Order: sequence, then C-alpha cells, then structure tokens
Amino acid sequence: MKTLKQLGEFNFIRAIAKGCVNHKSVVKGIGDDAAVVRLEKNLFLLFTTDMLIEDVHFKRNQAARFIGHKAIACSISDIAAMGGVPRYALVSVAFPKNLKASIALDIYRGMHKTAKKFGLSIIGGDTNSAHKIIINVSMCGVAVGKKFILRNGACTGDFVFVTGRLGGSHAGRHLKFLPRLKEARFLVERYPVNAMIDISDGLISDLGHIIEMSKKGAVLWQENIPVSPDAKTLEDAYYQGEDFELLFTVPQSCADDLKRRWPFKKVKLTCIGEITTEGKGLRIKDVKGKLRKAKGLGWRHF
Amino acid sequence: MKTLKQLGEFNFIRAIAKGCVNHKSVVKGIGDDAAVVRLEKNLFLLFTTDMLIEDVHFKRNQAARFIGHKAIACSISDIAAMGGVPRYALVSVAFPKNLKASIALDIYRGMHKTAKKFGLSIIGGDTNSAHKIIINVSMCGVAVGKKFILRNGACTGDFVFVTGRLGGSHAGRHLKFLPRLKEARFLVERYPVNAMIDISDGLISDLGHIIEMSKKGAVLWQENIPVSPDAKTLEDAYYQGEDFELLFTVPQSCADDLKRRWPFKKVKLTCIGEITTEGKGLRIKDVKGKLRKAKGLGWRHF
Repeated sequence: MKTLKQLGEFNFIRAIAKGCVNHKSVVKGIGDDAAVVRLEKNLFLLFTTDMLIEDVHFKRNQAARFIGHKAIACSISDIAAMGGVPRYALVSVAFPKNLKASIALDIYRGMHKTAKKFGLSIIGGDTNSAHKIIINVSMCGVAVGKKFILRNGACTGDFVFVTGRLGGSHAGRHLKFLPRLKEARFLVERYPVNAMIDISDGLISDLGHIIEMSKKGAVLWQENIPVSPDAKTLEDAYYQGEDFELLFTVPQSCADDLKRRWPFKKVKLTCIGEITTEGKGLRIKDVKGKLRKAKGLGWRHF
Repeated sequence: MKTLKQLGEFNFIRAIAKGCVNHKSVVKGIGDDAAVVRLEKNLFLLFTTDMLIEDVHFKRNQAARFIGHKAIACSISDIAAMGGVPRYALVSVAFPKNLKASIALDIYRGMHKTAKKFGLSIIGGDTNSAHKIIINVSMCGVAVGKKFILRNGACTGDFVFVTGRLGGSHAGRHLKFLPRLKEARFLVERYPVNAMIDISDGLISDLGHIIEMSKKGAVLWQENIPVSPDAKTLEDAYYQGEDFELLFTVPQSCADDLKRRWPFKKVKLTCIGEITTEGKGLRIKDVKGKLRKAKGLGWRHF
C-alpha cells in the first residue's frame, strides 16, 4: 500500500486531474497558475487557491502582518502570472482557540493592507479552530481583453526572461515579496508573451513546468542567472521555492525592445536562456560554455 | 491580552469584516452564505469557501469518499441557500506525507462524484503536507436571472419554513447529506422567498442570523419542529449544527400554495414559525402555547 510520499505530489495531482469532468466553459482546468473559465463570449475569469500552514509555510513567531500579506500576495502572484487582474478573494482560516486575538487580527490587517494596495476585495471567508494556524486564500481575477497567458505556449527559439533576483526567499523575502502584477500587466499588454509562470517551486522546477506543458526543451545560461545577494549559493537561485518572480518566454525578435523599454527601475529584468526543441530536456550552459542536464527538482510537498 | 476564545467567533468576524474595503461591484461581502458580486449588468456571481479539518469536522477513520462528498456538498449547500447554481470549485488540500495514497484518492473520488451529480466543475487546487488532513473548497456559482436570496430580507408576518428533519447530523447525516439544490431552485423560481440560509450552525443559531440581519424577531412553534428520528432530544433539532437543510421565510399569503405544490416527496417541508417585529428576539411557543425566549446558541468554533 503506497503512501502519498511514495506516490509523489505530481503523480498524485495527475491522478486527481484525471477524475475531473469539466463543463465546456472551462478553458483551462487543473495544471496552471490559475484556472480559466469563459463565462460569456468576451468574459474570461481566472481562479486560484493557496493554502498556507503554520510550520510549513511560516512560523507562528514571525510577524503576523507579513503572514497575512503572504497569504494574499501568493494568489495575486498567480493571477498576475496568468496575465490577469485580481478582483475578489475568499479567506478561510483556522486558529487555535487559545491564540492571542491580536495575532489573528494582525494577520487580517496584513491581508487587508495588501488587498487594498492591489485593488482586491476580500468578500467572504470561513473561520475554524485547529491546533495550527491555517490560511486558505482563493482568488478570482479577470482576463482583460480576453488575454491570458498559459504555461504551455513556449516556442522553440523563444528567449526566457525572469524578473528580480532569485534564491533570497529563505532569507525572509518569501514573507515580504511584492507580487509582480504591474510588471505582468505591462508584458501582457505590449508583448506576445508565449508562456508565463510565477516561481513558486524554484527556477528549475518551474521552467520544467513550462517546457513539459509546451513539449519543448530549454537551455539556461548560468552566467546570466540573477542571483539574490541573500542567496548562499547558486543552487539557491536554481532550486529555492517561493521567489514569486515572473518567468516567461517571448519570441527572440521582441527581446531587445523589451529590455530597452522595461520601465521598472527597481525590478531587474534578465534574459536567462532559450527554449529549444523537446529532445534534451532542461540543460544549463555553465560559464565555460559547457552544457549539462539540469538535475533534480524544486520544492515538493510530498 | 485576549485569546480568540475570549473574544468569540462572531466578534472576531465582525472585527475583520470592518477592515474590508470592497469594490463597488461587491453587492454583498462578508456575512451571508455566499458573497454576491455584480460582474456585468445582468451577471451576478456567488462565492463561498469552507474549510474541513480532521478531528474537527471529520475523523480519519470515516469513509474517505464521504469526507470528499461533505467537502463539496457544504459549499453546494451555501450556493443553493443563496438561490444560485454552483458552477466551479477550487480544492486546496493538506495531507500527511505518510497517509495511504488510497485514502487521499478516495477523498477525491467522493468529491468528483458529488461534483458530477450537481453539474459542478472542479477546476483547480493546491496540495500541501500537514499533520492532519485539511480540505478547503471554494466555490463560484451563478445567480440565474439576477435572483439571489440574502439572510436580511425577512418581513414581519412571514412564515418560517424548513426542509427535511433536524437534529440527525451527529448520527452520521453530516457526512451523507444531499444539498437542497433542486429544492432551492424550485423555491427561488416560483415563490417570493424573502430570506434563506442553510442550517450549518443549528436551527436556533441560523434563524438567529436571519432575524439579526433582517432586524426582526421570530416565534418557533415547538410542536411543528420536524425532529429527525436520529435526534436524541428536541434540543438536538434546535442546536445541532450541520443539518444543511434550507431555512427560509415567505409571505403568509404564499404558504398554503407552497405546501400544496411542493413536489419533493422524499423531502419534508414544514412551516415552523413566524417572523415578528424586532423587540422580543427569538422565542419558542411550547406545546401548551406558552412563549419562552430561545436560549443559547449553536456551534461556535471559538
């Protein structure tokens, strides 16, 4: 009898995705940053959900406002990575009965502040008791002008770009990051972005999702990887989850124009590789120009 | 320094609801079975979320398929009680790493079966590890023909109706109940239902929500209460949570017609009381015709 750990998280997700019977209005179900539903001819909605659990995603002694911020910001990041605009959120929580009320209220203050900053309305929720703090945020966004970006559209020859710097998440950034909403809106409105994802499992793993879904390969250029000053090693930039930066591919022909016009002075934009044909999977070109297969995976829950 | 238990669940909800800043498209935010959003002129969406936690809402040794069923059915019940039609669901889960994969997969089988039965698409989710099983379902429904029913519309003189029989939830019904979707659709399409809620906290508590939101009082007729054969005492019918029956009010003038035309042979429909002016709160008329104030409250998480 297999345990979940033996089955593996991605095999488990594949198994449950098979059981879904979707209405014809469902454009994209399980398997992207958010689901896409066509509600009316010109109206596409995006749906995502994220659960944060004490001692898995945060510790109780961390600042409560940042925990609340993170709970909301993760889902905003998902909607942004789809090219959409976040609109409505539902928040389910469980708190220990003996938790100081001020901690629970501060978590909500953090959520409300971030919601307000990004034009998001928290419209409902559910409260429960449990031994650990659990926060689930589900979010509904809108795809403006029918545009949304999936993981599966990367084309051979596309350049791979990433925002910000990678590998600094464990040093605290995962609680304080700002989701790249305006950056994603800029990209979607002006460039033919073929595939996009937010980095939650780690660069290697999330680029892996893009090439797997797009049936492509990719080469990452090691010397270009924007390593966070908070990363301990280059491996942190490759494998650490929860960077919440945008990882996307555009046709090579747009790359120079994009780099030139990128208007966000405080957010680095880096071209880190290229999409190839499917055969050789995900490879890394090291500083000497030598290609090696990218090893291993990012964060897995089980 | 107050704990959450000292503050109380409803005071906590009031405190967090105050912090919400809602977009003008939000017709009803926190405080009903589901939130209501006006997305376009003639398009109203309903949103609800429910978290189920092992050892709070179910035990691990209970049949996994029923746990999955319950997780989906609770939210269908919320959308039904708003007069809407459930459409899309997101499912966040946390499982212990060493859980038998077959248990997790059976929980999903239960969810998929119930989703299919009610025309619902499960379009996305999130998987995590934790020491206990946690399931969060958020659901989006549609208010057909712009009609939806809130808790706050009860009028003085309305009769109070309830579907089914109350107080049998602890005996196992809470895992097996069928949400009253077609019953709610029948009501909404044919009768001027003024207020509706599904019984999740218990009859007294949920009728309390209706009269509090409607700024009314109510009298319950003890001899009419449809007590489940599985209830141990009359008190179970009053105070046990998770009956998931519909509790609603209609003008007296419709009551006879409704009773006559009620087409659901297997689902009892009972007139159990009357809405009054606000002054005297919620009262129970006992079998001798004596009025007493309804005491106490239903289920509270903290």
